[in-house]
Amino acid sequence: MRIGAVEAGGTKIVCGIGNEEGEILERISFPTVKPEETVRQIIAYFQDKQVEAIGVGSFGPINIDVNSLQYGYVTTTPKPGWSNYPFLPELKKALHVPFGWDTDVNAAALGEATWGAAKGLESCLYYTIGTGVGVGVYTEGKLVHGLIHPEGGHILTRRHPEDTYGGFCPYHGDCLEGMTAGPAIEGRWGIKGSELDVDHKAWEFTAFYIGQAVAGAILMLSPQKVILGGGVMHQEQLFPLIREQVRRNLNGYVSSPALAEHIDTYIVAPGLGDNAGLAGSLALGLRALG
Amino acid sequence: MRIGAVEAGGTKIVCGIGNEEGEILERISFPTVKPEETVRQIIAYFQDKQVEAIGVGSFGPINIDVNSLQYGYVTTTPKPGWSNYPFLPELKKALHVPFGWDTDVNAAALGEATWGAAKGLESCLYYTIGTGVGVGVYTEGKLVHGLIHPEGGHILTRRHPEDTYGGFCPYHGDCLEGMTAGPAIEGRWGIKGSELDVDHKAWEFTAFYIGQAVAGAILMLSPQKVILGGGVMHQEQLFPLIREQVRRNLNGYVSSPALAEHIDTYIVAPGLGDNAGLAGSLALGLRALG
Repeated sequence: MRIGAVEAGGTKIVCGIGNEEGEILERISFPTVKPEETVRQIIAYFQDKQVEAIGVGSFGPINIDVNSLQYGYVTTTPKPGWSNYPFLPELKKALHVPFGWDTDVNAAALGEATWGAAKGLESCLYYTIGTGVGVGVYTEGKLVHGLIHPEGGHILTRRHPEDTYGGFCPYHGDCLEGMTAGPAIEGRWGIKGSELDVDHKAWEFTAFYIGQAVAGAILMLSPQKVILGGGVMHQEQLFPLIREQVRRNLNGYVSSPALAEHIDTYIVAPGLGDNAGLAGSLALGLRALG
Repeated sequence: MRIGAVEAGGTKIVCGIGNEEGEILERISFPTVKPEETVRQIIAYFQDKQVEAIGVGSFGPINIDVNSLQYGYVTTTPKPGWSNYPFLPELKKALHVPFGWDTDVNAAALGEATWGAAKGLESCLYYTIGTGVGVGVYTEGKLVHGLIHPEGGHILTRRHPEDTYGGFCPYHGDCLEGMTAGPAIEGRWGIKGSELDVDHKAWEFTAFYIGQAVAGAILMLSPQKVILGGGVMHQEQLFPLIREQVRRNLNGYVSSPALAEHIDTYIVAPGLGDNAGLAGSLALGLRALG
């Protein structure tokens, strides 16, 4: 089986071919530019690849309501040219196979539930913490859409009492994204996170916010696994700090061995590593086959 | 069709008979006492009622994992005699019909999605704000269980800058429940909420916290409807105040007509009124018939 996958990020597009085992057989990537040019490149890649379906996990916000006339559109993004752009319809015009379509983070959550850290489970949350923060929500065996789709990167958390940084989110200032994404770390300390020591105060602050957000998400959704990915989470020292904050915030209220005894295997890095996004799009493509 | 329904609260039990239209044909209620006596009363009520199934929406935490040996148990409640009590198994021993079983708030969410304010929708959140705060989560046509079940009444919100009350939650102090449930209002102002004027500062504070929680839940879950029930929400002046807080917190980020133009019909009181709980249990019973 040959399934196409498109991981469409705001900065770059990754296209690949995979199989039903989640194996990525080949891939290319190119920068995300104007939509017409980007679509042309995606179509060119898949033109002679003879895939049976294609899954697209896209940056957003996007329209994922199959009953909407704007299904498959990128909606209100500030990214030049992409606002209200019929991304999926344009791909479908040229590539005549079944398409799967969802947010990049929902795709990653599905990929992890299919082949990764949440394999065999009915629910997981997938956080990406990088240049922005996004959350994919998979629950009771379904990706959550609802009114639009989850945007859990923008929830408010309480401020760390020693943190004077105002946050960079243009909508909410000091929401989760505004305080923990890459630009927040650089904005607060004046240098990139990747250049900070592993015992820098930055990681205490970052874990404080992420831990609070994850604790709140556990209360709201009771996921069977919480997966933390994205560039910021390459700082592996964050994991024990975040787990400690989650415990501190829940304070024993949610009574489960997953939290009390096995939190090291409950809050984890993506099982698919940096393939989570592309493999997730692959999983969307597989689902499109029915 | 005659379906039994049990709304099992920590203070009182309501038992009733209803039909597939969500109509409640008869009901009784009695105080929740020791579990053996309470179970005896429930069984006595249904013994000769010839119902085809019974749905139970229960106070918690409860075990709703059908693969668990403790399925149907009330788990870690401080309520005397109820901790680790096999509530559903005891009912099943005496009443030989299919049983539905879920949390009281999940039941209410299902009832609202079946016959009430969220009728025909694939998702809704049901908050009860009364002596405690609970949240039922219905998404993509399914009640959310996950690891245990949602406990969204205990999320942290930011404090109102003028509010000096410490909160009454024994686990989290000033979590949502600790700041907005009935005992918080009475603890903060020294008199019951029902005796406060409709323009008392209390309602500004209460709306501040609930609005923040609802905004966060919209970001995490993107529900198609948010339903606010429970005794505190009988204070109808709260609704416009809460809608305003939700708007203020989201600040235009979630772009949907439901929020921009129709928030009055998006954040609403239960369509089933104070029947939401019992009708929800009825819906659980109907689902148990398959």
